[in-house]
Order: sequence, then structure tokens, then C-alpha cells
Amino acid sequence: MRIGIVTLFPDLFEPFLRLGFVGKAIAQGQLEVCFENLRDHGLGVHKSVDDTPYGGGSGMVMRVDCLMGALESAQAKSPVPLRKVLLTPQGRPFRQPVARELARHAGLLLVCGRYEGFDERIRLFVDDEISLGDFVMTGGEVAAMAITEACVRLLPGVLGNEASIDEESFSESLEGMLEYPQYTRPATFRGLEVPEVLKGGDHAKVASWRRQQARERTHSRRPELVPAAEQDPRRR
Amino acid sequence: MRIGIVTLFPDLFEPFLRLGFVGKAIAQGQLEVCFENLRDHGLGVHKSVDDTPYGGGSGMVMRVDCLMGALESAQAKSPVPLRKVLLTPQGRPFRQPVARELARHAGLLLVCGRYEGFDERIRLFVDDEISLGDFVMTGGEVAAMAITEACVRLLPGVLGNEASIDEESFSESLEGMLEYPQYTRPATFRGLEVPEVLKGGDHAKVASWRRQQARERTHSRRPELVPAAEQDPRRR
Repeated sequence: MRIGIVTLFPDLFEPFLRLGFVGKAIAQGQLEVCFENLRDHGLGVHKSVDDTPYGGGSGMVMRVDCLMGALESAQAKSPVPLRKVLLTPQGRPFRQPVARELARHAGLLLVCGRYEGFDERIRLFVDDEISLGDFVMTGGEVAAMAITEACVRLLPGVLGNEASIDEESFSESLEGMLEYPQYTRPATFRGLEVPEVLKGGDHAKVASWRRQQARERTHSRRPELVPAAEQDPRRR
Repeated sequence: MRIGIVTLFPDLFEPFLRLGFVGKAIAQGQLEVCFENLRDHGLGVHKSVDDTPYGGGSGMVMRVDCLMGALESAQAKSPVPLRKVLLTPQGRPFRQPVARELARHAGLLLVCGRYEGFDERIRLFVDDEISLGDFVMTGGEVAAMAITEACVRLLPGVLGNEASIDEESFSESLEGMLEYPQYTRPATFRGLEVPEVLKGGDHAKVASWRRQQARERTHSRRPELVPAAEQDPRRR
């Protein structure tokens, strides 16, 4: 998989690309990350990439011509087609099914904004707009890291343990519910014990307890995520 | 504001703390970021911080005793009380009102997990659990960056332009709606024009057009975010 990143701050990503699973995926050749520095497409002596908004208001808006220069340059350098994704709080929310969808593409181009926002016209030249969530950051770079990390761990062979993808929060086997509680040693910590059922070795009982816990936890914390099949019949 | 970060990968944050608004806030003394390396609280010759789950299953679970060592050490070093926040997909979703709430604390301690999850018992010793969104990453570090960035830009004086906070996506003045479209120079790009109303200089017309656009965009992209007062009466 190839991920291109359009940004004014490529340095932000340096340790992110070197450490952990992302670093491992790059070292193993499963992932290639390329940068397109937006500054290289800036105008004038200051290489400006932004300007004041038409109609007035605070903040600066990123110019569509500079952005297009970066998008076209990144695609020209890539051996695979890049799905162009604008990172913006106005996009569709990033969720696990979106990660699975993006991870199937041979190439992505994540476009990180800074300043007040993008010139509206850039939307006509991208394939997708994604929001990390309903909060505002100063740029798209952290969103690009989150999307990269969420996609990379879905690539075959990266985690080294495919099973762990199958039983985690929002996975298909848990039907999008939150994960059940996990415990490890010590068996007692400051008077708090591990539940007996987990220490007993009865796999059917453990599986049933975990499913029940996942359902209860999802009911109490995120009722909107409980699948219909798991709804308490009294609430239907 | 003081933000402590419990992590196995403090190096991941180095350029993040040096560049952009976060770097500026640290240089100006509005933000102090401290790390507690979880490895320093590991056990045995390998300084292990995780172990296999009770009841079986794939992946490793972070030990409650190692985590508690890190939490207590971070608090002992801090001159202000730290609100302890576990970063987990099982927490309450991070949204702009949560950012505003967190930014009011004098100190936060963001606890980043790796591996399959936390031992359930750590939940009894933290003040809050936050999820960046309904997707799974390999660790909490990128979530810690997102939360840090979203909070820091709300601190007085960091953005240098308080007004830009007031009229952005999810802001109170837009009643949680998405932001209206923005345009800047050039006036024409590949045949695409800036809307006439924005070039006219009639501030009342501009304001009315922007509110209408914010409403329409939110209706079409994120209908669940449209405030009741802005609902189309025919749909009520």
C-alpha cells in the first residue's frame, strides 16, 4: 500500500514512520509513505499557500491552485492511482468500516490542511472527504497519522496476529460492539480480584461471559452501537 | 496547562511538541508536557508491562500494577492535580465540548495503551475514559496528540486570533453545525468562480448566505448535527 501525504509539516511524521507497527510495515515493504510538501507549490518569494477569505472573516484559507499543484505532483510521482482524501471536520466521520474500506485501496493521498480551511473549490478535485471526529484541530496531520495507523494494522501480516483483529471493539465478530473486559496477572491487585469464570478454564463459559459483558458494556456506554440481535427484547 | 503522557513511545511526540501551535504554546509557557515512560515501571529483566489475558484469547493485556506505578509517579512529580484520562475505544467519544471541558483543567494525564487493551481494574483508578472515535489503532499515542492539539488551541492567546475559534465547525456560535464554505484568491480557477455574494461587500448578505450554507451543508452531510432551531419546519 502507498500512502501519500500533502502537508506543510512532513517532519511531524518522522518518528511515527519509524516506530511501532507503522515502522515495521514500512521496513517489511507492506507500506510506502511519500510526502508532497505543500510549500513547494506556494506562490511568490514567501511561497504562500493561503490568503484571506472572500466575504471577510478571521483566519486564512488554503488556495485551491497551490493544493492542486500538490495533488497533481503527488499523483504524477506515484506508480499506483491515489484515492485523494481531504481531511476536514466537514467530511464523513472516520469509523472502523471506513478504515477497512480505505485499506483496500492500493494508494491513498491524505491532504492535510492548516489555517482556517480549504478553498471550497478543491472539493471538486478530490475523491473523498473524511473527518477524524467532531472536534477541531489546527491541521490535518494528526488525522493523517490516525488514518494511516488504523489502515496499516489491517494490512495482512502487519500485526502478526490476525486473530486479535477479529475480537476487538467495533470488529465484525462483535457486531460493532465494544470489547469485553480483559484481565491479566496479578490475580489480586489492591484487593481487586480477576473474575472467577476467567480463571476456571471452561471455554464455553468464558465465551458466554465475554459476550454478555460486551453487550452490557455497550448498552450502558454506547447504546446506539448495540446491534438489533442483541437488543433486550423488553426495550424493542 | 500541564499535560502528562504515560506511554511506551515518548519519542513519537518529539516533532509534535516542537512544531506548529503546540510548539508555540510550549515556547510561550502556556503548555508544559511531561512524559512518564511506562517501561520504567515494567517488571523483570525485560521490564515487561503486559501479560497474556485470563480466560485465553489473542493479544497481550497491559498490567494494572505497572500502569498504577506510572500514574502515581506522574502525579507525584506534578505541581498541579492531574485529571487521569484513559485513552481507549471503550471511552466516551471525544468531541468539541469534551475538548472545551478538558482545556479547563490545570493538568491532564493522558494514559496511552499498546497491545490488546488495559487490565479492567485500572478503570477504578482513573477519572475519565475517552475514545478518539469508533476505530481501532495500535496505541493511544495519536489520540493523545489529537486531544493535546484540540485543547491547546483553546487556551487563551495560543491561536493569536480568538475570533477564528468562534466561527468554525462545531463552535457554539454555529450551534454545533459544520462551517460554511470558504473561498480565497484566485477569483477564477479552471473556470470555477467565487460566489458573487462574497465579492459584493454587503456584510449582512454575506452573513445570511453563510448561515444558510452552513445549515444546508449540515442537513445534507450530518443531519444529526442540525440544531432544532434550524430544522426545516416541514421535516419536524
